[in-house]
Amino acid sequence: MQALRQKVNADRIAERIEELAKCSTTERGVTRLSFTKESETANELVAGWMREAGMSVRRDELNNIIGRYEGNQPDAPALLIGSHLDSVIEAGKYDGILGVIAGIEVVQTLFENGIRPKHPIEVIGFCDEEGTRFHTTLLGSRAIAGDLQEEDLQAKDAKGITLADAMKEIGLDPANYRLAARDPKTLLGYLELHIEQGPVLEQMNQACGVVSGIAGQSRYQFRVEGLAGHAGTVPVPMRKDALVGTAEMIQAIERSALQHENLVATVGKLSVSPGASNVIPGLVEGTLDIRSIDDEIRLAALNSILEECKSICERRGLACEFSKVMESPAVPCSSRLIEAISSVLEERNMKSVQIVSGAGHDAMAVAAITEIGMIFVRCKDGLSHHPDEFATTEDMGVGASVLLDVVLKLTS
Amino acid sequence: MQALRQKVNADRIAERIEELAKCSTTERGVTRLSFTKESETANELVAGWMREAGMSVRRDELNNIIGRYEGNQPDAPALLIGSHLDSVIEAGKYDGILGVIAGIEVVQTLFENGIRPKHPIEVIGFCDEEGTRFHTTLLGSRAIAGDLQEEDLQAKDAKGITLADAMKEIGLDPANYRLAARDPKTLLGYLELHIEQGPVLEQMNQACGVVSGIAGQSRYQFRVEGLAGHAGTVPVPMRKDALVGTAEMIQAIERSALQHENLVATVGKLSVSPGASNVIPGLVEGTLDIRSIDDEIRLAALNSILEECKSICERRGLACEFSKVMESPAVPCSSRLIEAISSVLEERNMKSVQIVSGAGHDAMAVAAITEIGMIFVRCKDGLSHHPDEFATTEDMGVGASVLLDVVLKLTS
Repeated sequence: MQALRQKVNADRIAERIEELAKCSTTERGVTRLSFTKESETANELVAGWMREAGMSVRRDELNNIIGRYEGNQPDAPALLIGSHLDSVIEAGKYDGILGVIAGIEVVQTLFENGIRPKHPIEVIGFCDEEGTRFHTTLLGSRAIAGDLQEEDLQAKDAKGITLADAMKEIGLDPANYRLAARDPKTLLGYLELHIEQGPVLEQMNQACGVVSGIAGQSRYQFRVEGLAGHAGTVPVPMRKDALVGTAEMIQAIERSALQHENLVATVGKLSVSPGASNVIPGLVEGTLDIRSIDDEIRLAALNSILEECKSICERRGLACEFSKVMESPAVPCSSRLIEAISSVLEERNMKSVQIVSGAGHDAMAVAAITEIGMIFVRCKDGLSHHPDEFATTEDMGVGASVLLDVVLKLTS
Repeated sequence: MQALRQKVNADRIAERIEELAKCSTTERGVTRLSFTKESETANELVAGWMREAGMSVRRDELNNIIGRYEGNQPDAPALLIGSHLDSVIEAGKYDGILGVIAGIEVVQTLFENGIRPKHPIEVIGFCDEEGTRFHTTLLGSRAIAGDLQEEDLQAKDAKGITLADAMKEIGLDPANYRLAARDPKTLLGYLELHIEQGPVLEQMNQACGVVSGIAGQSRYQFRVEGLAGHAGTVPVPMRKDALVGTAEMIQAIERSALQHENLVATVGKLSVSPGASNVIPGLVEGTLDIRSIDDEIRLAALNSILEECKSICERRGLACEFSKVMESPAVPCSSRLIEAISSVLEERNMKSVQIVSGAGHDAMAVAAITEIGMIFVRCKDGLSHHPDEFATTEDMGVGASVLLDVVLKLTS
């Protein structure tokens, strides 16, 4: 590997992360939904930094922002480095963002060192991974993988605006979405650096780790319907209280999740109607999210949860409906890329800690068209999707240095 | 008791209820807030029917509409019959209204039979019981009971208009509000007929019942704070999920309510933050409403619920805060009036079903100045505060006939 005059600039990473965090609709934390004024501003900032790093920049048919650093063999397949630029509501500054900024930092370091590898390198800021706005996931990376469907374009946000309309509003023609798909033959692989969003690296006192795979996930919406009524006049045994039934379901879901070490289950969203202090809840709508690296464990837990919820509702005279929003099997990382990352960690005298990712990542979608590898960076208290999400500048610098070494290994 | 040539006219009650239902700002259901054009039209209709029934009519200093049918001993204390003419938003046609129309029907029947009782009878249409417009309750009946406060006049509606300004707008001087108070020495008692707003009479297959009293009520807001986090990466045993904790609390609240026949407890309002399917809930806010005819049972249940919620939250590492919004003691009906109503029910070969009113009524306020008695009329599915609220013409006729007999018993 070549010795570099210039190393990655950790302070520059931290500064850019602060800059991007300003593109938010909330004062508390970062709220940057896709296809909004804030996401457009973020894309412009990222495009500027990509150009500064010597890349040519384009946005694709789904508003993914893509910088390309040509190799000295222009027809060689490209190494992709990516992550996402959207956020959940009142999120942290690092989730997704760090992977894009670290990718740019790696290329900028090559550029500043005058290094032109054999393979081209592309850094991608995906438009929408979280799915917060349209209740979908991996919109940007699925488009690139050719997995986006016509029906995804009809997904609606809280105001009833479809993805297609949101795309038109920023000047994209939704009819062209298939053109975002990449040809596997033109790709060398995909690397994603991400904060761990969990407590394992912190507990093991490691700045970085290599991801063995991404947990499979089932996401459902549910609807529990009872009978609204006056809170003062209907005796409790005669009630069909949709919220009390849902509370029993939530308890059952927690019990089920506690039965397996490699399983998590979450009811994250819940709305109660009519929603007045003196009215018995007649309707509850919510979401269920179940994940495991072991698809069999996940599907068995899901089935037993659905069964138990059904029987709780039957006993209480409630109507209950679960509908699948999303299901994705566990996705292992490529053994070649795990090995490349592990060997860099070892060369740097770091422990090669292998971690399962409980969170979904754009890498899951990209795995359909090329090999994937992921690097995790330690974050404070394992906290993510929260304004207090934090990674130290030092750890981000270590992560970007590891990524740079892996990139050099793969593209030289 | 005198034999009547003419009986109460159930069809006339039903027709007048339909007529009043037209005074609404919404097409769906009845929406008639106080001190509006619609409430003024309703008052004019009611005043006309009162005159038709042989009453002299006045509106008092708070826009309560009052018809007086003189007795043959003008100085004898008056029997009041009343209920309210305002509604919630998109309400039914019967809540409150039926009590006013039935009162007029009773007097009109006396008038048409040429009966002049010993005691005067006054029928009152209260201006505002629901408190929908100004977020207060029992405005009209509290004024008559001398319990209205200076600060009530400053209560604001959604547009920022105070009660005082709303009164001025229809030609009332708010400074005079105290003059609406009635002297207890001039009163014989107060009767209120109302739809049950609950399912008990329907289940017992009874058209009417006698109310034993109005339940006391405690209303609280609560806030459960945990730690938001990524739904995929935080192992379940390490979570501080505010929603799972709240679900356990809701179960405990239901268990506590089921321990006493005379207790209801409701969590009617619940909001979950941040509220995304892939984020562990960090904050839940909700309401708790507890009612019982037995204040000791209510307060004991409240204390045990607060204790249990506290210990659930402590065990789960959640912060928990309950704050009192409102508390009102139970108001028993007068045993003399309960007896009078019961004996009429028995004379008519009906079961004398005693029901606790879980809902508040104008009678609660009037109890401060005179004895109260209440008659409940069966309503369909126990439904109220809903456009589908319904009572049959036959049941309303039975209710008014019972009321007439009680009035004759008390005023002859």
